[in-house]
Amino acid sequence: MTLFAHTPEPPYLAVIFSSSRHAKPNDGYDMMAEEMLILAAQQPGFLGVETSRDEQGFGITVSYWSNRKSIANWKQQTDHLAAQQQGKTEWYKEYHVRICCVEEEYGIE
Amino acid sequence: MTLFAHTPEPPYLAVIFSSSRHAKPNDGYDMMAEEMLILAAQQPGFLGVETSRDEQGFGITVSYWSNRKSIANWKQQTDHLAAQQQGKTEWYKEYHVRICCVEEEYGIE
Repeated sequence: MTLFAHTPEPPYLAVIFSSSRHAKPNDGYDMMAEEMLILAAQQPGFLGVETSRDEQGFGITVSYWSNRKSIANWKQQTDHLAAQQQGKTEWYKEYHVRICCVEEEYGIE
Repeated sequence: MTLFAHTPEPPYLAVIFSSSRHAKPNDGYDMMAEEMLILAAQQPGFLGVETSRDEQGFGITVSYWSNRKSIANWKQQTDHLAAQQQGKTEWYKEYHVRICCVEEEYGIE
């Protein structure tokens, strides 16, 4: 998986997931997070994902989607629901989800 | 500075800045990045910022703004222009900027 998402011309949607983790090594988080990235990439309407987590356990994952229906379906996907539940009870101290419409993109490669 | 941005009810704007850094210790990046966060927070229309950079040098910074004019002004702010220039020539291997409208937010605190 590459670091950067190669998204189409805007408009499309972004889900910004910012979270702080409990510092518990070997709690299964890393494996689940990787599985969820792979699974998300298989969903209809998925356009890409970018993710970063720092040494203090604060992370931002942005996934990109073609429409609202795809985001809603992914939120309800069975394995993802289980991961969300474990996230709430075990892994995350705090998290925020923001659903956005991307209107413009530029950069250097 | 807290980890999470405390933003108002949507709609508002988000600038997603994803970047990969050259691995050069002591190149002045960390100090400049911190200065830019402090300076951004002083700009009109600034609502908050969240930032994470992992051990591999891949980072995501999301800043939140009340309107397009504020984003445009910050992009043209003198010290920020100098930082952007140094970013292009010295610090970043690659970066992408996405300007978005945040339509919905939820989470747990």
